[in-house]
Amino acid sequence: MREIAVFSGSAHPELAREVCAHLGVPLSPLRVSRFANDCLEVQLRDNCRERDVFLVQPLVRPVQEHLVELLMMCDAARGASAARITVVMPHYSYARSDKKDAPRISLGGRLVADLLVAAGAGRVLAMTLHAPQVHGFFSVPVDHLHAQRELAAHFRQYDLTRTTVVSPDLGNAKEAAAFARLIGAEVAAGAKQRFPDDRVRINAVIGDVGGRDVIVLDDEIAKGSTVLELLDRLRERGARSVRVACTHGLFAAGALTRLSEQPDVLEIVCTNTVPVPAGERTDKLRVLSIAPALAEAVRRIHNGESVSALFAEPRGS
Amino acid sequence: MREIAVFSGSAHPELAREVCAHLGVPLSPLRVSRFANDCLEVQLRDNCRERDVFLVQPLVRPVQEHLVELLMMCDAARGASAARITVVMPHYSYARSDKKDAPRISLGGRLVADLLVAAGAGRVLAMTLHAPQVHGFFSVPVDHLHAQRELAAHFRQYDLTRTTVVSPDLGNAKEAAAFARLIGAEVAAGAKQRFPDDRVRINAVIGDVGGRDVIVLDDEIAKGSTVLELLDRLRERGARSVRVACTHGLFAAGALTRLSEQPDVLEIVCTNTVPVPAGERTDKLRVLSIAPALAEAVRRIHNGESVSALFAEPRGS
Amino acid sequence: MREIAVFSGSAHPELAREVCAHLGVPLSPLRVSRFANDCLEVQLRDNCRERDVFLVQPLVRPVQEHLVELLMMCDAARGASAARITVVMPHYSYARSDKKDAPRISLGGRLVADLLVAAGAGRVLAMTLHAPQVHGFFSVPVDHLHAQRELAAHFRQYDLTRTTVVSPDLGNAKEAAAFARLIGAEVAAGAKQRFPDDRVRINAVIGDVGGRDVIVLDDEIAKGSTVLELLDRLRERGARSVRVACTHGLFAAGALTRLSEQPDVLEIVCTNTVPVPAGERTDKLRVLSIAPALAEAVRRIHNGESVSALFAEPRGS
Amino acid sequence: MREIAVFSGSAHPELAREVCAHLGVPLSPLRVSRFANDCLEVQLRDNCRERDVFLVQPLVRPVQEHLVELLMMCDAARGASAARITVVMPHYSYARSDKKDAPRISLGGRLVADLLVAAGAGRVLAMTLHAPQVHGFFSVPVDHLHAQRELAAHFRQYDLTRTTVVSPDLGNAKEAAAFARLIGAEVAAGAKQRFPDDRVRINAVIGDVGGRDVIVLDDEIAKGSTVLELLDRLRERGARSVRVACTHGLFAAGALTRLSEQPDVLEIVCTNTVPVPAGERTDKLRVLSIAPALAEAVRRIHNGESVSALFAEPRGS
Amino acid sequence: MREIAVFSGSAHPELAREVCAHLGVPLSPLRVSRFANDCLEVQLRDNCRERDVFLVQPLVRPVQEHLVELLMMCDAARGASAARITVVMPHYSYARSDKKDAPRISLGGRLVADLLVAAGAGRVLAMTLHAPQVHGFFSVPVDHLHAQRELAAHFRQYDLTRTTVVSPDLGNAKEAAAFARLIGAEVAAGAKQRFPDDRVRINAVIGDVGGRDVIVLDDEIAKGSTVLELLDRLRERGARSVRVACTHGLFAAGALTRLSEQPDVLEIVCTNTVPVPAGERTDKLRVLSIAPALAEAVRRIHNGESVSALFAEPRGS
Amino acid sequence: MREIAVFSGSAHPELAREVCAHLGVPLSPLRVSRFANDCLEVQLRDNCRERDVFLVQPLVRPVQEHLVELLMMCDAARGASAARITVVMPHYSYARSDKKDAPRISLGGRLVADLLVAAGAGRVLAMTLHAPQVHGFFSVPVDHLHAQRELAAHFRQYDLTRTTVVSPDLGNAKEAAAFARLIGAEVAAGAKQRFPDDRVRINAVIGDVGGRDVIVLDDEIAKGSTVLELLDRLRERGARSVRVACTHGLFAAGALTRLSEQPDVLEIVCTNTVPVPAGERTDKLRVLSIAPALAEAVRRIHNGESVSALFAEPRGS
Repeated sequence: MREIAVFSGSAHPELAREVCAHLGVPLSPLRVSRFANDCLEVQLRDNCRERDVFLVQPLVRPVQEHLVELLMMCDAARGASAARITVVMPHYSYARSDKKDAPRISLGGRLVADLLVAAGAGRVLAMTLHAPQVHGFFSVPVDHLHAQRELAAHFRQYDLTRTTVVSPDLGNAKEAAAFARLIGAEVAAGAKQRFPDDRVRINAVIGDVGGRDVIVLDDEIAKGSTVLELLDRLRERGARSVRVACTHGLFAAGALTRLSEQPDVLEIVCTNTVPVPAGERTDKLRVLSIAPALAEAVRRIHNGESVSALFAEPRGS
Repeated sequence: MREIAVFSGSAHPELAREVCAHLGVPLSPLRVSRFANDCLEVQLRDNCRERDVFLVQPLVRPVQEHLVELLMMCDAARGASAARITVVMPHYSYARSDKKDAPRISLGGRLVADLLVAAGAGRVLAMTLHAPQVHGFFSVPVDHLHAQRELAAHFRQYDLTRTTVVSPDLGNAKEAAAFARLIGAEVAAGAKQRFPDDRVRINAVIGDVGGRDVIVLDDEIAKGSTVLELLDRLRERGARSVRVACTHGLFAAGALTRLSEQPDVLEIVCTNTVPVPAGERTDKLRVLSIAPALAEAVRRIHNGESVSALFAEPRGS
Repeated sequence: MREIAVFSGSAHPELAREVCAHLGVPLSPLRVSRFANDCLEVQLRDNCRERDVFLVQPLVRPVQEHLVELLMMCDAARGASAARITVVMPHYSYARSDKKDAPRISLGGRLVADLLVAAGAGRVLAMTLHAPQVHGFFSVPVDHLHAQRELAAHFRQYDLTRTTVVSPDLGNAKEAAAFARLIGAEVAAGAKQRFPDDRVRINAVIGDVGGRDVIVLDDEIAKGSTVLELLDRLRERGARSVRVACTHGLFAAGALTRLSEQPDVLEIVCTNTVPVPAGERTDKLRVLSIAPALAEAVRRIHNGESVSALFAEPRGS
Repeated sequence: MREIAVFSGSAHPELAREVCAHLGVPLSPLRVSRFANDCLEVQLRDNCRERDVFLVQPLVRPVQEHLVELLMMCDAARGASAARITVVMPHYSYARSDKKDAPRISLGGRLVADLLVAAGAGRVLAMTLHAPQVHGFFSVPVDHLHAQRELAAHFRQYDLTRTTVVSPDLGNAKEAAAFARLIGAEVAAGAKQRFPDDRVRINAVIGDVGGRDVIVLDDEIAKGSTVLELLDRLRERGARSVRVACTHGLFAAGALTRLSEQPDVLEIVCTNTVPVPAGERTDKLRVLSIAPALAEAVRRIHNGESVSALFAEPRGS
Repeated sequence: MREIAVFSGSAHPELAREVCAHLGVPLSPLRVSRFANDCLEVQLRDNCRERDVFLVQPLVRPVQEHLVELLMMCDAARGASAARITVVMPHYSYARSDKKDAPRISLGGRLVADLLVAAGAGRVLAMTLHAPQVHGFFSVPVDHLHAQRELAAHFRQYDLTRTTVVSPDLGNAKEAAAFARLIGAEVAAGAKQRFPDDRVRINAVIGDVGGRDVIVLDDEIAKGSTVLELLDRLRERGARSVRVACTHGLFAAGALTRLSEQPDVLEIVCTNTVPVPAGERTDKLRVLSIAPALAEAVRRIHNGESVSALFAEPRGS
Repeated sequence: MREIAVFSGSAHPELAREVCAHLGVPLSPLRVSRFANDCLEVQLRDNCRERDVFLVQPLVRPVQEHLVELLMMCDAARGASAARITVVMPHYSYARSDKKDAPRISLGGRLVADLLVAAGAGRVLAMTLHAPQVHGFFSVPVDHLHAQRELAAHFRQYDLTRTTVVSPDLGNAKEAAAFARLIGAEVAAGAKQRFPDDRVRINAVIGDVGGRDVIVLDDEIAKGSTVLELLDRLRERGARSVRVACTHGLFAAGALTRLSEQPDVLEIVCTNTVPVPAGERTDKLRVLSIAPALAEAVRRIHNGESVSALFAEPRGS
């Protein structure tokens, strides 16, 4: 069997190292150079020829730098005669650009999928895509993992008898409902309204939250303003306690600090699909590692074993 | 300017004729032959060379026959040197196969999009796709119209002051919310649960419906069992009146009769994206024509005028 | 070596089981679902990852259903990371649509070949294509078997000293001549004429048939009207006896009964590339199994052994 | 309307000039250079930008030089921003490589079609392809003309009451039958046999030729050995007179002289799809010009008028 | 004729406006949004349907941001049904990544060319590519302009009788020689050496520079260290005066200041293919505008007139 | 591991046999047929199924014949289900057509690269491409070897203390400089000028050659006129001795004789990337074999070992 070779771009080498540790293989070295004209060049510094190559790179800030770097990693691996190129992209940020909700806009979720294939990607290993349909944007096989297993294991340590899972947005309500079933809880969702001046606000919570222990669940938290707004609605409706959870903890613009400062927020839970800067961590933050899940998926992909058997998205409600 | 040529497959010639009437162009003749071995052959019976060709075919029952027919229409137009081939597909039934919710399944929404392009389609004109992300399954430009304008015009004849729009499914709740805003109503949604024996049931309605005039809104109604189940929940919660609305009225397996027999259902509203068999029509059915909208879109596509200016999906909440 | 995995669509599972029995591998389970809106979904119910996947599906009635099903089987196998996807298509009915003999018609033989590749097919194993040129419609490797070996073995049990092989059509005369050489017989052919009213009739037999034991040979018999017409010509010319043979016995529209009722037809011979409904079988029918040949070809494809060495089309006259 | 621009490679500039004369447009200049290392370079010496470009080049001896030259003409026109590139290929010699009649051989008819598209060809205008299925080898639109009209007009000057059209080969018998119907004649065909030592010989004529005025018809005559052998069989069976006709008069290896020397051959008729060297012409040769037909097809392609209306292959028997 | 529509990304809107002014068309508005997760979205804010769209974006610092933005501009224009998409890329910085001079590196020049085509670019208008071979990296037509005309016009204001054009690098010597011929000057070149510690130094000047008025010419100046090193060599060899010229004045890391501080450098000349920050300009800098040339090229591309007639690269020595 | 299979076209079977001898594998037989109409057909006469196939064919005179033959070899191997197809092309003559130095010319270097991929080539093994950028013309992986190692080993037998390597052309000066460093010599280059009548002449030598032992180095020598002209310049400048070296010794039009007749040329050195006809060899010719290098590269490609480790182009100055 061809050997495995794992490379990491500069987006999240810590995660790549953790995955390699679980796999028991070394992380292959890679060099990213920046020329005087600001162009990048990637060099894979291990033989790739006929290897089963995995390229680890979540598309996190600075997204464009990491995206072009990833495209070059694919190109370099293809030019170096890799037998197979799997992009391990635990956070596919462009998945949010998944529909044409205004005229003549770019459709980043599909475009970047096509660019990756044009650059040589032969398969993708992704985690908690913003919408399940984004799977269909790729013309190559995708293994789509979910962090619900890890999040559920975490929350099962608590008494969940009066718990309601609340999605900040109707668009994500189905995933929240699936998670609620997984931990035996109720479900509710915020409903947003777009105002004439183009502002969007959560003006209603559909479902009961009064006196409940709320888990606010979203796939990704960036600036956190939606969650903060939802917290206001939850308080108005008399929620008993609040925990905030997401897969992708981007925490831009001081979001982590602002959320942690809310006295009624007991805990903020995310996974390590994206790196959390050490300096921004707070006492309320819990980061769950998805490296074991990624490593197991990589191992199964490499060995030709079923990935869905273990990690598949539960058939939704 | 190259001339326009509109052809209809055998799925819904009545709609094609109505579109042509609005455009003021004749419907070009087309022959579908079936050989003794059950294979199809399509012949376009008008010159296509350097014409701006529009092929009208919603993917309705029998879906596979109509799909292969449509692929052959594309192939024939390409082989006949059409300048441009636009597939006018007012109902894209395969849009429902938009995610991998079980291992090793086909992803029909993406596959059929790719097949159409492989057969020669250069653009698509679609209506109310099951999910807005399906737009991104196509590698060619898509003009995506919505029937909300037509539906809203219809319901505005009523007193809407106590109206709640109810989506049978959380997955469609966002579209229901957008429609509710359009007509100044509230929104609610059914929540489904999958049981251990794999049955799925609506076991909750998220949002208030007691004493409300309900408009049940879905993109498509096929067997209608989800709507019937929702009606039970609405009765339990004391809804005052119910109207049922959808874009695509497939009404399979006697659904129209069963829905019409519900005494508290005042009205069933759909559009003519799919043909309703004359024999199955009931007194409670109202069919709104989207032919004027399709015709205007075709005219603008042909003339290079903005389509989004008129018909674009409102930027969702 | 990667393992083999054989799946069958719903067209001819009996043949797939017979092939698997010869290979000594189990037939992997597959589920075809039909949704309320008449759309299909295919699920491969065995791990495909890195497997050498064979998908068995002749394109028989209902052809469009079986074609779309096959396209979805390819798509599902590709999405499930099959190492290689070989379509085993013992009857490629669309091969008859192999030329543009009228303006602006679809060219089904080429179109369906392209669709299969677009859906993920990586190779094709076919049998007795209507014309040898159809091989060139595929952009992927094709192994093209012939049933002449099986048919010849069958007829060699008879005294062939006064035998003439008759092709109903000049277009198939070359294959008839090759078969005649194989069994040491003479060759003749019917010549068709198209009348002003577009009817086509066999109005001549080119070559001698008087007092001969005739084997009428065609690649496929569907409605059988051409053969029946040829029988009239053979009687007029004093043929001594008639046997009818073909590779693909479609027998549409009661063809089998009508042919069997001809008193001077001693025997009707076909292979099991397509299923013959039990209820339509007659005493005169002999069905030869090509499962051993298909199984041996699959085994050789899987093991990287030469297929042509055993089964190649004899270099024609 | 974009202007037309016609270029000729070095294969048959005389035909290109004749086509241009009929069109009333100048033949645009083109330069073919050969470097010291034997590589070719093509320069189009007229502006192509946004023009409707036609490249005239039959694939005649030396075939490989003319093929590579044609590929470079396509590449140069594409690079020079031609609006549309139509390859006018009155003789597609590689059409004879249309099937895999031996293991592991190249399939030139399909390969060259793919190469032309890879080099930039957007459409093809061909004449009397060796088999009608070759049309389906191209993934771009093909207009397929036939010289039967020109040949029929020529032969109608004679008394055709006792005429039989004879195809040297069963494989071409269908086309011979179509031509026979066109001029009101009978049809017959030679049947070839392959011997154990791999020699091929015409050992039978299927159909009656005794006392008949024979027109031997083939699509192409190269070395002429098949025709010479057929002449022996015709003499043995007492044919009254013989005329030889083909579309593509390649006449390799002194074929024209040898055929002309047969005393019972009254006439050899071909068209100018390929150039006949002045030095090889004999008194018995009649060359019919297909330039008017090509010019009319080019004019119609350019103007978006139906080509099939005038020139289509009659729907075969 | 379809109308023209020019859009500018955020890389160099000033140049785009200048081009539009020369063309006499307005610059169409475009919006670039950055989401909280750092992803970009582009919206073309003018109708593109059936328009001849030109997208102006040199790949300047920050290169990755501008590249992804440009890819999205292409995608948005394609999705908006542009008739033709021309990327106007006056500086293609990735052209420097044009060879594999180390194992397993990305080949950015080819990769980015492929990405642009994957995103929808149909043609490219470029200026002074780092090597002429980079033209061949694109699979779509490229119009390749050169700034030598503008540079020559500038230098002809001086007495050039004792002038030598010096390329800092042998790899660019051919272009320097062509420019020298254009202005009637001599040519010389620096020769670089790579030391064991991987440092590269100019250790020789090939050709005479003593007592000469030197024009140092390079395609691009970034950090300027090569030029500074060359200045040392020129001083050692007694050059009389020095002017520095390039097409692409990137001037990274204070290069402009450092070069301007060299007392014997009389002048630094570049074009406006890339924006020079106002704050970094020095008295010695002369910026020549290539907007008239770009505008004329755009006009000719739009009108289907020959571009090469005016701007083509002179056939090199 | 899949087995290796090496085939040779008719361009240079001697080299293929030598490579096979070094590899210890037999050269698989191949048949090239030429039909009466001058078309080629290639048959691979060994099983290719699932083999690692190497096709050896330098593009030497007659280039077009050998190119089409090579394309057919690729097509035959693909159709025969080769696991991987590597084109071993020790001389890629079309690499010289690497830029658009005149309007509307073909770009042979890119076109032929695309044709090879269209025909089925999956990788390329090339030697001393005319420009390193030509690597980027291929969309498949290229292993690019250099003969500098072999040439350097040869020249190290001499006293190199007063040696200058002279490139006939500035365009090749960088490679000459790299070779000079490899053997510890100086570097110089001829500078060509194009005259108004389009003649090109070497009118200067940049760098010192007086009293030096000169090695004239070019990648390819065809007619040799550039070298002869350079010899005149070297004599004028008082070179002490001259040796001529190149990788690709095409020696067209009696070049070898003419060069050998120059009394001050001590030696002419080339490699066997192209065949030197026995009859043209002279006493001064030394042919170095690159078969060991090719064989080692093939072995490493087959085994998945690093090729760059041994043979990579030194990172240029």
